[in-house]
Order: sequence, then C-alpha cells, then structure tokens
Amino acid sequence: MNRVALLGSTGSVGTQALDVARHLGDRVRIVALAGGRNTGLLSAQIAEFHPRLYHSLLPDRVTGLGARAATLEEIASDEDVDTVLVATSGTAGLEPTLAALRRGKTVALANKEVLVMAGGIVVEAAHRFGGRLVPVDSEHSAIFQCLRGEDGPIARLLLTASGGPFYRYTSERLTSVSVAEALAHPVWSMGQKITIDSATLMNKGLEVIEAHWLFGVPFDCIEVVVHPQCLIHSMVEFPDGSVKAQMSPPDMTLPIQYALTCPDRVPARTAPLSWTDSRSLTFEPVDVTRFPCLRLARQAGAAGGTYPAALCGADEAAVSLFLKGRIPFTGIARLVEYALNAHRAADGASLEAIRNAERQACSLVTAHSEEIVMEGAAQSRARL
Amino acid sequence: MNRVALLGSTGSVGTQALDVARHLGDRVRIVALAGGRNTGLLSAQIAEFHPRLYHSLLPDRVTGLGARAATLEEIASDEDVDTVLVATSGTAGLEPTLAALRRGKTVALANKEVLVMAGGIVVEAAHRFGGRLVPVDSEHSAIFQCLRGEDGPIARLLLTASGGPFYRYTSERLTSVSVAEALAHPVWSMGQKITIDSATLMNKGLEVIEAHWLFGVPFDCIEVVVHPQCLIHSMVEFPDGSVKAQMSPPDMTLPIQYALTCPDRVPARTAPLSWTDSRSLTFEPVDVTRFPCLRLARQAGAAGGTYPAALCGADEAAVSLFLKGRIPFTGIARLVEYALNAHRAADGASLEAIRNAERQACSLVTAHSEEIVMEGAAQSRARL
Repeated sequence: MNRVALLGSTGSVGTQALDVARHLGDRVRIVALAGGRNTGLLSAQIAEFHPRLYHSLLPDRVTGLGARAATLEEIASDEDVDTVLVATSGTAGLEPTLAALRRGKTVALANKEVLVMAGGIVVEAAHRFGGRLVPVDSEHSAIFQCLRGEDGPIARLLLTASGGPFYRYTSERLTSVSVAEALAHPVWSMGQKITIDSATLMNKGLEVIEAHWLFGVPFDCIEVVVHPQCLIHSMVEFPDGSVKAQMSPPDMTLPIQYALTCPDRVPARTAPLSWTDSRSLTFEPVDVTRFPCLRLARQAGAAGGTYPAALCGADEAAVSLFLKGRIPFTGIARLVEYALNAHRAADGASLEAIRNAERQACSLVTAHSEEIVMEGAAQSRARL
Repeated sequence: MNRVALLGSTGSVGTQALDVARHLGDRVRIVALAGGRNTGLLSAQIAEFHPRLYHSLLPDRVTGLGARAATLEEIASDEDVDTVLVATSGTAGLEPTLAALRRGKTVALANKEVLVMAGGIVVEAAHRFGGRLVPVDSEHSAIFQCLRGEDGPIARLLLTASGGPFYRYTSERLTSVSVAEALAHPVWSMGQKITIDSATLMNKGLEVIEAHWLFGVPFDCIEVVVHPQCLIHSMVEFPDGSVKAQMSPPDMTLPIQYALTCPDRVPARTAPLSWTDSRSLTFEPVDVTRFPCLRLARQAGAAGGTYPAALCGADEAAVSLFLKGRIPFTGIARLVEYALNAHRAADGASLEAIRNAERQACSLVTAHSEEIVMEGAAQSRARL
C-alpha cells in the first residue's frame, strides 16, 4: 500500500490522480489532500477519501470532516506519507518537494516548474537524503520506463511533441491565433497555462530542462521530435544505437498510475492500443523559427543558474497577458526573449535568488508588455 | 571477455558475427569456429581468429593452422567456451545447443529450428542446468531488450514483420512469382531459405513459435504486425497497457553484438537512426488468407508435440522444391498444409520423435509434391 499525499488535488492532474486512486483501490491510500481555491471540490474529495490532513488557500471554506488543516510542508514531511504527488501549478510545489526528499520520501512530480527552476537544488537534495524522484509527465514517464533495467550510459533522449494545434501554421498566421484556438489542444486535455505552453512549444522546452535534471543528460543530447499522433511518449537511444520507445494511449492516468505503483504494472482502466487497424506514426523535426520558445528554453536551461527561473516567470506573465487578450500569441516568445536578455544572473542559485529571478522577470513582462510587443511588431514590419 | 564458439561461421549470420567480433576487439575471443562445406572461407577465418577448435563437414580440406578438429558437441561442451553462438541452419544446431545449456553456458541462438522443433526440451534443459538462452534474431532481441528490468507478467508480444517483397500482391499474382523475385528481400540480406520463408511469412510463423518458448507467452498473446520500414523490431505490451518498442537500423550486427555483450551496450559500428528528416512508421494487420504459412505455423505451434517439427520438415522440402523451380510460390503453403494434415503426432516429443516427424514430413512433400500441388491448383480452379 502506497500512502500518498496529493498536492494540487483539484487541478487537472490532481483529479485524474484521484481517478487512478479509485481504480487502484487498496494499493493506494490518500492520506493528505491539498487544493487551492476550489474549496467545494476539495471538500467533496475529503468526504470521499478521508485524508488525515488537508491544505487549502481558503481553509475556512473547507469542510474538513475530521481531517486536520496543515501547511504543504507539514503534509510533505508527515511520517505517514510514502509518496508526495506534486501536482500543484507554478512554484508552490518547490518547498514541499524539498521537504519530502529531505525525509527520503518518493516525490511523484507532475509540476514542471519545480525541476525547471530549481533542478540543481532538488536533485542534490534527492541524492543527499535518499529521496526518489518519479516523473508523472507522460514524456518523462516514458523515458523512466525505457531506462528501467538499463544501468549504462544514455546516448540521446528523444522527447516527442504533439506539435500543438498550430504546428502547420505559417509565422504570419500565428500572429492572429485566438485564445480559444490556443486552448483547444488536439490531443491532451490539460490546464490553461500548460495548454498555451503546448501551443508555443514552451512546454516542450520546459520538458527538455526537466529531462536534463531527471536523467542527468546534457542538453545537446536531448532532442525534440514532432510526433502528432502522441502514441510514442518519448524514446531513449543507447550507445549501441538501440532505441527504446514507450507507447500507450494519450491518457494521463497511465503515467500517474505508473508513478504510484512502479515497479508494479497494474492493469489499467483504459483499453490498450489496438493493432487490428492500420496505423501510421510520423516524426518530423521541430521548426524553432516558428516556435522560438523551444529555443529560448534550451538556451535558458544551458545557461543554468537563475535563467530558467527567469524563463518561467516571464512565460507565466506572458501567457497570462495572452489569455487576457492583451498580447498576440507570438508576443509570448517575444516577451520571454526580452526578459531573458534583460536578466542578470545572480551569483549562485539559492532558492531566494531563484524566486527573485522569477518575480523580476514576471514583473518586467507585465509592466512593459505593450511597448515590447509593439516594438517587436514594428521590427517585424521593418524586416518585411 | 566473452569466449565464443561460433557454429555456422561461414553463413550469413556467422560472417556478420565475425564482423562484430572484429569490432568488439578484446571484449570477445573466438575460441572455436564451425563451418559447413565452405572450407576456403573457414580456413581464412581460422587464420584470422586463431580458434583452438574447429569443425567442418569436410575437415580434410580445412587448413587448421594449429586448431584442432572437433565435433559440434565437443565444441559446445568445451570448458573454455562461455557463449555458443548457434548460427547453423536447419537442425544441426539442436544437439550443440542442448550440450551447451546442460553445462550452464549461454547459447546465443540465431537458428530458429532449434526452438521451433524442440522448444520444450531446450527450455527445460536451460532451466534445469542454469543455461541461458539469448536471442539473436532482431525481433526476439527487441523483445529481450524491452523485457530488460521488467520482472512482471507480459500482456502481449507484438512481432513486427516487413511483410516481405510480395505483401501488396494479389493471391492471383502470388501464384506466378519467380525464384529471383522471391530472393530479393526489400530490407534484410539473408540466406536463401530464410529469404523465401520471409516472402511466405513462414519465417514470421517460426518466430511466433520461437517467441512462445523464449518468453513463455501463450500463442494467443503473440500478435504479428506488418511494419514495412523494419525499424521497430518488435514490441512488448505490459498489463498496464504500456508498450515498449525497440528500434534500430535494420542491421543484423546490432542484435548479434547485443547477444555477445549484454548487459553492456557497446557503441556500434553503424550510424544511429537520424531524426532530422521526417519519418513515417506504418503498421497494418497481416492477411493470413494470402499468406497462409503464418496461420499454419501458429496452428503447428499451438498443437505442440511433433507438429512444429513436421512443419519445419515440410517447409524445408517445399522451399527447396520452389528454389528448383518445381513448384509455384503458393505451392509452399499448400505442401506444408498437406504435410501437417497428414502428420500423426507421436506420443511424447523425444528428440528422436522430433527428428522422425521432420524427416517424414520432408519425405512426404518431396515424394508427392507434384500431385499435391496439382490437386490444390485443381481445387482452386474448381472454386472459381
């Protein structure tokens, strides 16, 4: 029985994790639930799963039913918890991740920002205290599964990308995509921020940085391949040229379940892939000219230090502006690039420096978005 | 250092295995070489690799250069041998395989007939004496690699098939394919018998039986999927719906090398797969109406006992008749089906019973080929 604390239980991954918990029955016990502001849903989850602890940003509005209110770090440190599933968005997952790893627990990580911003600190904490990081993202779960039983070096990681809804759009057409279009991802059903990040390929860039930290592979050995069918979730190439790929229906409950049960493979709710019909899996290189966010993320990852935090802060702010209709879709990359160019790396990369870098990039983008985007647009026109 | 006895050194897999040995340098030492009738090549191999033992069907014509002539079983039992690479064709590999397994050695198996005909006996010998079977066929090597580190049950094996040169041919057109057409395999360069078996899909049927014995998977959990690009060499589906696939350039030196070095993955001579160009991997179900050999092999495998031996004997004879221009391509399946229907299973499946079944089916096909094929053709005409 895996005793699980679920942080971010009311979000997209959180609610799917509870579906998995329902399916797994006695193999999993939910001992803590942490939601944000959706107190109605959190109360209902508490009534169903009877956790001992809960956390909410609005604790007074939660019906606790005997569960005790606690901070995220208290929950992550609790001795009754084996696995902390971090499915919070943004940087809220950072401190609980570190708290859990420092107690030698398993952290099932569905939150990208934690590793993107503080990968060095998180990986060091895991090594030092014997904590274990298990990926929940389908791409990293695929790599994790392909590496199972492989103890030698890795030649290359091949992260697959759906390409998002706009992969066939021209640069011109990309400037005019609407919020509604950007929120309609062709394959995955996810939260708003990550859906926009998927459309700009920033999400894939964050995954490259995450893969670097999870699997200790240098950036120039991590490639992104566009694979619109989203059946192969990623691949690993070994030094002998052999490539292993992991494939499954595009359903987040599968990697969530694997993170909670591995090394066991428990029969899933979803039907396996069928091979009785013809099927074509296609792969093509990424065009970073039309999707510069992937290039920016790689650059920030390779620069290291506080650069990835600045990337996250700038992207958070830029996506928010796009969702409010204040900037065009292509303005996101422009704002992120501006913030990265403006960023001055702090000495060392303490948690404080990381949070500062994130905050400053976020403020910079929010304060100057209009002039930056206008200037970029003027430059584009001048180039034509 | 792996001390290797190579049986079948002058054949297609054998010569490629020596290429691998050249590439691997000190990791491998060739301590014995066994060739058939190509004594010139065997002599040259002996001069290059300086084995302690050799075997030939025409030993007097071999320049031994200090190597001692020995039987295949002596070689397979020799205490200086760690791995016996069985790359002989037909049933000559059976006794040396058993001899090596009974001494707890590793058998790298490139010969299908050994497991197809005597899978039960071979697997039992391996279990009882601690011998280890390592596959060399690209499909089984792929499965073996996908199973690395996976200790739970297997839901399905998905064997990929190129489909051979005639996969798009109509039944009508298949009756008139020439020997030259059948010997021109679109992807793999192999010996004559296996090239014809690939064109009829009998080879894939033999692989299904082989996979059954190697991995202990029931026949109804082994599927064949046509994959003309031959990059995914096979796949394993686990109970949670996760599928692992192994991919590499279609080059036999890779699985041969893996069999000789695993668990190590040594950088290969061949260039890894490139992902900078677009690529499409297609999959489609097999049509066993046009390619009945796959169905016949499955039936023989599931019937067990001496049936797979009868299958092998009949196919050997039928392919030989086709290569001599005595029967049409579609006559191969017809003859095999006739021999299987005529076969009476022996009680138990001793090595003697297995060899008898093979011989009888072979004789039956050779003796009655013309009337069987003519009768089949008449029936076909009658059906029209």
